[in-house]
Amino acid sequence: MSMAAKKGAKRRRRKMWSSHRPPMYAPPGTLVVDPTAAKPTIRVISYGPDHYLDRSVTDPGDLLPLLHQHSVTWVNVDGLGDLETIKRLGEIFGLHKLAQEDVLNVGQRPKVDEYDTYLFIVARMLDRPHDHHGDPRNDHRLGTEQLSMFVGKDFVLTFQEWPGDCLDAIRMRAKEKRGRVRDAGADYLAYAILDAVIDEYFPVIESYGDLLEQLEDEALVRPRPGTGTRVHKIKRDLLVLRRAMWPLREAVNVLQRGTSSLITAETRLYVRDAYDHCVQILDLVEIYRELCTGLLEMYMTSISHRLNEVMRLLTIISTIFIPLTFIAGVYGMNFKNQPEFNTRFGYPIVLLVMAAIGITMMVFFYRKGWLGRQENALDIDEGDEQESPKDEPLRGNGHPAR
Amino acid sequence: MSMAAKKGAKRRRRKMWSSHRPPMYAPPGTLVVDPTAAKPTIRVISYGPDHYLDRSVTDPGDLLPLLHQHSVTWVNVDGLGDLETIKRLGEIFGLHKLAQEDVLNVGQRPKVDEYDTYLFIVARMLDRPHDHHGDPRNDHRLGTEQLSMFVGKDFVLTFQEWPGDCLDAIRMRAKEKRGRVRDAGADYLAYAILDAVIDEYFPVIESYGDLLEQLEDEALVRPRPGTGTRVHKIKRDLLVLRRAMWPLREAVNVLQRGTSSLITAETRLYVRDAYDHCVQILDLVEIYRELCTGLLEMYMTSISHRLNEVMRLLTIISTIFIPLTFIAGVYGMNFKNQPEFNTRFGYPIVLLVMAAIGITMMVFFYRKGWLGRQENALDIDEGDEQESPKDEPLRGNGHPAR
Amino acid sequence: MSMAAKKGAKRRRRKMWSSHRPPMYAPPGTLVVDPTAAKPTIRVISYGPDHYLDRSVTDPGDLLPLLHQHSVTWVNVDGLGDLETIKRLGEIFGLHKLAQEDVLNVGQRPKVDEYDTYLFIVARMLDRPHDHHGDPRNDHRLGTEQLSMFVGKDFVLTFQEWPGDCLDAIRMRAKEKRGRVRDAGADYLAYAILDAVIDEYFPVIESYGDLLEQLEDEALVRPRPGTGTRVHKIKRDLLVLRRAMWPLREAVNVLQRGTSSLITAETRLYVRDAYDHCVQILDLVEIYRELCTGLLEMYMTSISHRLNEVMRLLTIISTIFIPLTFIAGVYGMNFKNQPEFNTRFGYPIVLLVMAAIGITMMVFFYRKGWLGRQENALDIDEGDEQESPKDEPLRGNGHPAR
Amino acid sequence: MSMAAKKGAKRRRRKMWSSHRPPMYAPPGTLVVDPTAAKPTIRVISYGPDHYLDRSVTDPGDLLPLLHQHSVTWVNVDGLGDLETIKRLGEIFGLHKLAQEDVLNVGQRPKVDEYDTYLFIVARMLDRPHDHHGDPRNDHRLGTEQLSMFVGKDFVLTFQEWPGDCLDAIRMRAKEKRGRVRDAGADYLAYAILDAVIDEYFPVIESYGDLLEQLEDEALVRPRPGTGTRVHKIKRDLLVLRRAMWPLREAVNVLQRGTSSLITAETRLYVRDAYDHCVQILDLVEIYRELCTGLLEMYMTSISHRLNEVMRLLTIISTIFIPLTFIAGVYGMNFKNQPEFNTRFGYPIVLLVMAAIGITMMVFFYRKGWLGRQENALDIDEGDEQESPKDEPLRGNGHPAR
Amino acid sequence: MSMAAKKGAKRRRRKMWSSHRPPMYAPPGTLVVDPTAAKPTIRVISYGPDHYLDRSVTDPGDLLPLLHQHSVTWVNVDGLGDLETIKRLGEIFGLHKLAQEDVLNVGQRPKVDEYDTYLFIVARMLDRPHDHHGDPRNDHRLGTEQLSMFVGKDFVLTFQEWPGDCLDAIRMRAKEKRGRVRDAGADYLAYAILDAVIDEYFPVIESYGDLLEQLEDEALVRPRPGTGTRVHKIKRDLLVLRRAMWPLREAVNVLQRGTSSLITAETRLYVRDAYDHCVQILDLVEIYRELCTGLLEMYMTSISHRLNEVMRLLTIISTIFIPLTFIAGVYGMNFKNQPEFNTRFGYPIVLLVMAAIGITMMVFFYRKGWLGRQENALDIDEGDEQESPKDEPLRGNGHPAR
Repeated sequence: MSMAAKKGAKRRRRKMWSSHRPPMYAPPGTLVVDPTAAKPTIRVISYGPDHYLDRSVTDPGDLLPLLHQHSVTWVNVDGLGDLETIKRLGEIFGLHKLAQEDVLNVGQRPKVDEYDTYLFIVARMLDRPHDHHGDPRNDHRLGTEQLSMFVGKDFVLTFQEWPGDCLDAIRMRAKEKRGRVRDAGADYLAYAILDAVIDEYFPVIESYGDLLEQLEDEALVRPRPGTGTRVHKIKRDLLVLRRAMWPLREAVNVLQRGTSSLITAETRLYVRDAYDHCVQILDLVEIYRELCTGLLEMYMTSISHRLNEVMRLLTIISTIFIPLTFIAGVYGMNFKNQPEFNTRFGYPIVLLVMAAIGITMMVFFYRKGWLGRQENALDIDEGDEQESPKDEPLRGNGHPAR
Repeated sequence: MSMAAKKGAKRRRRKMWSSHRPPMYAPPGTLVVDPTAAKPTIRVISYGPDHYLDRSVTDPGDLLPLLHQHSVTWVNVDGLGDLETIKRLGEIFGLHKLAQEDVLNVGQRPKVDEYDTYLFIVARMLDRPHDHHGDPRNDHRLGTEQLSMFVGKDFVLTFQEWPGDCLDAIRMRAKEKRGRVRDAGADYLAYAILDAVIDEYFPVIESYGDLLEQLEDEALVRPRPGTGTRVHKIKRDLLVLRRAMWPLREAVNVLQRGTSSLITAETRLYVRDAYDHCVQILDLVEIYRELCTGLLEMYMTSISHRLNEVMRLLTIISTIFIPLTFIAGVYGMNFKNQPEFNTRFGYPIVLLVMAAIGITMMVFFYRKGWLGRQENALDIDEGDEQESPKDEPLRGNGHPAR
Repeated sequence: MSMAAKKGAKRRRRKMWSSHRPPMYAPPGTLVVDPTAAKPTIRVISYGPDHYLDRSVTDPGDLLPLLHQHSVTWVNVDGLGDLETIKRLGEIFGLHKLAQEDVLNVGQRPKVDEYDTYLFIVARMLDRPHDHHGDPRNDHRLGTEQLSMFVGKDFVLTFQEWPGDCLDAIRMRAKEKRGRVRDAGADYLAYAILDAVIDEYFPVIESYGDLLEQLEDEALVRPRPGTGTRVHKIKRDLLVLRRAMWPLREAVNVLQRGTSSLITAETRLYVRDAYDHCVQILDLVEIYRELCTGLLEMYMTSISHRLNEVMRLLTIISTIFIPLTFIAGVYGMNFKNQPEFNTRFGYPIVLLVMAAIGITMMVFFYRKGWLGRQENALDIDEGDEQESPKDEPLRGNGHPAR
Repeated sequence: MSMAAKKGAKRRRRKMWSSHRPPMYAPPGTLVVDPTAAKPTIRVISYGPDHYLDRSVTDPGDLLPLLHQHSVTWVNVDGLGDLETIKRLGEIFGLHKLAQEDVLNVGQRPKVDEYDTYLFIVARMLDRPHDHHGDPRNDHRLGTEQLSMFVGKDFVLTFQEWPGDCLDAIRMRAKEKRGRVRDAGADYLAYAILDAVIDEYFPVIESYGDLLEQLEDEALVRPRPGTGTRVHKIKRDLLVLRRAMWPLREAVNVLQRGTSSLITAETRLYVRDAYDHCVQILDLVEIYRELCTGLLEMYMTSISHRLNEVMRLLTIISTIFIPLTFIAGVYGMNFKNQPEFNTRFGYPIVLLVMAAIGITMMVFFYRKGWLGRQENALDIDEGDEQESPKDEPLRGNGHPAR
Repeated sequence: MSMAAKKGAKRRRRKMWSSHRPPMYAPPGTLVVDPTAAKPTIRVISYGPDHYLDRSVTDPGDLLPLLHQHSVTWVNVDGLGDLETIKRLGEIFGLHKLAQEDVLNVGQRPKVDEYDTYLFIVARMLDRPHDHHGDPRNDHRLGTEQLSMFVGKDFVLTFQEWPGDCLDAIRMRAKEKRGRVRDAGADYLAYAILDAVIDEYFPVIESYGDLLEQLEDEALVRPRPGTGTRVHKIKRDLLVLRRAMWPLREAVNVLQRGTSSLITAETRLYVRDAYDHCVQILDLVEIYRELCTGLLEMYMTSISHRLNEVMRLLTIISTIFIPLTFIAGVYGMNFKNQPEFNTRFGYPIVLLVMAAIGITMMVFFYRKGWLGRQENALDIDEGDEQESPKDEPLRGNGHPAR
């Protein structure tokens, strides 16, 4: 990947959703290349039960002798930065202009479009946490990358925005003849690619689950200013996940239930499995979104509690000392004939009165429960007044040793 | 259960949803065992109207002579920690690789998959409150355990994550020939197992109902800091219940309405009953979730009320004493010619003025209703100004004697 | 009703939803009686166009000569406390075990189950406000009672949890031959019973409407601490109403659209009318729930307003007097050579300066609009700065004379 | 309209939804008159392409010679206060008891019921703003009035609760032979009546739109205490509109798509137009409801901002003067040997120290941005620290001159 | 565009949705012109594969010789201010009165109505940001303009409210024979027009996306008073977008799936592409609405945080100095025999005691974490005190010692 492409990639990462669209007012089906896109590199993998061939190609024309030789030919294009390459591939495989336009205008929702001799499938790959900035623990937002796939009788043609993907395992399995991939057709390869894309969502979503668990402990036991911000960021990333997965589930469902003759019955069984995975991911996304909402509520509650705590302290101090200061002020007046000044025990009596007032106030506040061990406003006071286990059913946040 | 398995179990309990997935990039249908999983133990119960046999088996091969002898053979496997056992069972019963993968990758949503000669059913059992940590009253989260079930013409094969389940009553009924189980086929046994799993949800959900009732009294009558936390925890556990029950309802509906010839018409009548139970449970979950939301609202209201109460006290004290202190300050000044100092009644007059100001303020606050019996801000003041029953329709929280 | 039964009833009233379930692990279809349930009393009403017979029966066996004599036989059972009676009735009418179980396990959702020769209908009657504790104005929660009904070709068999119901008007109409009931069949009687149950919801829901109207005035004009609590209680009761009515609407819809030959076309017309009533009730429930939410919002707003008002007072007092007190403090210092002390007009000048500061502050606050007639923070200040009617479109809460 | 009827009308206006139901326990189809209802007056308009006749009738029997003479006979009844009239009309037109009951029990939801020879349509007319109290700008709530309509082959029979309606334009068009009404049949007349009812919603809903626009400016620029109350009232009235229009849309859809032979294909085209209007109205209702929610949020934000502003002022004053007052207090102590008292520059030095502290505090608060022009907490401060237009993308509420 | 029309346009911009309706009580199908509408100008473009003609026409009658000459005739009318023109066009093209009414009554929802020989399509164009006031960065609200389109076998007739549109690119493509437009029929032209209208939404919605990104940074890092207002305005504009796009999606779906013979199979493929664009736009609208909600939550949290910060400062100052002032007050009293006054070290001891109290308080607050670097409560400080990534996953603002 060239430096320029890398920089383009970085600039894009800030966006929730990479996108490129042709200039407005261009006729539909116009192909326009994003100038910041990476230059395409083409890799062909052609295999049958007994053959396996893996070759890099620079000129799309070099593909022609390789096609239709073995049971499946998989052409993968990394980078959408050269119009000629895309157009040439469109001619070779007979692709519709509108589908080609969708390949270039990254930012498509996942979908399946049926054409006469091929299926056009769009999916979105997550930025891979281990080699990009997708780690949810730092400030970078979760990004997605468009995968466009054409599935024909004996070929699969995939387009990706950037080099590097989650499909090496499939290439390995094809090369080493593990799993069903070498014996099955192009439809199974397409399924395998989709399945790999979907499986990438699991570790990401689980990392959010772990984060939420930590944040829940934090929000309940020791809420801090940044808790809300972090929950908000997770919520935003979950929106990205949902936006990518929801239509993908629909697309996979179309593949499973659809009538296209390009998908065999045996492969449909596998597609059903991929559909289950999509449903599971969406399920988790929805649950985590609800957890986020609950955490924000708890957090707001905790802020309010802390305000109460602060105000209680201020009120206690003020209520005790303001009257006392007033008394001191009275005896600081300079009237000639304030009779108390000359009495013998005037001073100690006033001091005693002040002490009495102060102590009365303290008792009053203690009775109200304003004094005591309520440091952490969300702690359940496990005072001695609660003996009956019936009244204290949920022992709050006594996570023993953290 | 070995110590290691127990520890694994404990570690897992912290998760809302036990789960295990194969390494990414493995081909679909790859079977990989969770190293922390319990070692499998196999128990065979084979029965017909006139026979009953209950045996523990260590080698799956020992099953072969027992199969197809009686009208129903129920093979139950506790623990998923040994790959060979699972694979061997898969061969004996002719199970699809994808279904076997789902058995091992616990964390599946409940579902029904139809295969040619058997049904594959996934359900989730609640951690049993009486022998595990599932008691909603302590800190442990509500957990679920995956039950995988294969139902064929004359066999039922069940897989559980851990030893111990809620199915002993079915074994008892089969042994003692109570109920319909001995006379009916494998489909009825499968129904009976599902019904037992579903019935386990009722006591758990009812315990949340009781908790909510207590918390409602608490939130209305004497709100405490921990109330919000407890409601939040119930809400979170209700999410777990809903996540487990919602797809189970769909699965049971598929069994009831489906076209599989493995389920007889008579059994479908029973499945309809189980479906009703699922709907009832979801109904309660939704109602309890709405109650939780209402309680949190009440709780926030009560926090705000308390802040008001605190601030009112501070304001009353400040508003009364700050002006008085100012007056005292004026006469504490040391000007040579402050004429009041030398008058005869200067001091008592100033004292009287101060008293007058103080009393005026008190009357003002009393008139505003800031003074009085409003200790608990949520109590309905049943003062004397409300005589007309029309104005006081709902006698608030007069729970007589608590 | 015996004392014991009454006490049981009372204990149950606290629950939102009466319920009883058999011991877990019992085989499906097991009949178990709730020991706190009332003992059953049986009443038979048998009629045709020309006959009418109303008899109490203690032994179910006594029913046999009465059945199939007239065009309709209505057997009503109050109390589910005796297993033998229920079982015997099940035999006489040929009821399925699962349906019998549902009769005993009160707490069912309303539903219609079709069996070969009869329909099984479950509905929920509201606790009758006039003879029980259901009056929404006191503290008792709104409760419901299960009505189980079997409708055959020439019989209706109803089970209720407690004596006393809303069906006397039907009995009267049958006896006095008013309305269509004597001329129509068992299906019309079943409709009439459902219609009576549904009609009981109207006065209850309207009483909540009246309450909400009062609470709205209260929340807008003179919000009080208990307002929130009362709205919360109404919301909770509306949940009960919705939980009972929502599935009942579905059940009535099944009766209306269903294909059962037990319901004649003419009766379906009446069932459509009952369906309209269900929809109307649910409509009101939803509207009242939205009103509740709106009221709670208004109430929270009003609490915040009051806090603002309190804080404004505190701030005004503090901001005026704290600087003045400081000035007094400065001249209360005891430095030997504070030159002001010895000037002639030092004291009056300081007093004038203080007055000037105080008045400036007051003017400042008046300009900010903090002083004035904003006693009730929610009142629309109809001050003189608003003349244009365009700016003051909704004259707020000027209920003229209350 | 008699005085009594008028008073009844007034009493009802307070309700969101006029309603009357028969005594509970009456048999279905019982006709009971609301004693406060207006006495009926009957007006017959009979027309064909060449005839037009408009007559008031007191005895329903007088209708008989007028029916079936011309292509359409429209009988309109204002007031439901006389049982005999209603019953007699029911006989003349052969109306089902249940439909008659719905006519009397005002408070029905809009609906279309098909009977053998006629359609029964219920719609709800808005209280007309120009002749009743429906003006949204005063305190009266928005009310609705039930319009019941029977449409047969050559007649339309309408019942209204009170005299005065929005149908005079139709009468005019029929009389003056404008539009299609004279040439078309009863179905077109029914459509025209429905269309007139629906069109009445537009000006009302638009007046709410104008109100919301004003309230938005108010909430953003100069929020006042009553803003929340007014938004709440609009929200409540929108609920009434939605409750009346939602089922009406469904009813109109039934007319458009339905199979009744009473509606001709040409009229269906017009009904589709009415359906579009219903959808538009509901669309606006939903948008305005969302706007209300947004406004309440803004309003709450503004209240919180003002509290912040108040507290900031208090804090600034207190933080500056409390330490100063303490220093003054120190030098107000009366110790014999406070050395500072006798120094020459003690007093000016202390004054300088005080001034230094005060100025430091002011600078501190200025730096924090607490001092400045933030009078209106929601104004966007267009201070000098923001030069880059990138940072200030939305110039807030600078409505130039209002 | 005349001055009057411009002024009318300006007046309308303030409305969220331009609208005009005929006087109430007019018969359906009455055509009434909005007096503020622009005067119509007519432009005819007629083309076939080999012909192209572009002409302005003033009298609709001049159209007659131009029609049906080439394969497609596109008549575009800008401005709806002249009744005669509209009526004449209606006669020439045989348009239904109701459709003509919808053209004049701007404010229609997007829809497709099928008539016998033509389709009537309504869409809404966004005010064009570059030549109108639609720039989302200034105060003007987002507005929409109605585009009414009649599509026949060989003609397209479009009506717009104001001159200036987004269709010049299509005219260019037709003239220069780029794209498919010259070779395809009227259905493709209609599609191209819809597509251009839909494409105009993308840059507008993306500008909101950019704004939200900026506002998110602002809300998280340096929240300001106007943030809430700006988010609210975006939310309101998104409502407008949704209201325009939601029914347009439905309309496009009708075109795609519908059975009208006017749309060829090839064009349907393009319509599917336009449908995808609609779905993408709605998707973004929903996501941005959720982001807005999240931002408002964060903003409220930040306001609460700031209140906490303010109150904490006040409480710290008060709690430290109020007791000290009290002590100073005690020794400012003027009792004759306060023994401390005459002791040698009374004064320094009191000063030391005061210092001790002050320091103790400071330590207390430091321990509580109230003192320190928490200037901006929402800032994520990326300080050096966090080493363990496990416990501190998202850089919070770490209270050091708890």
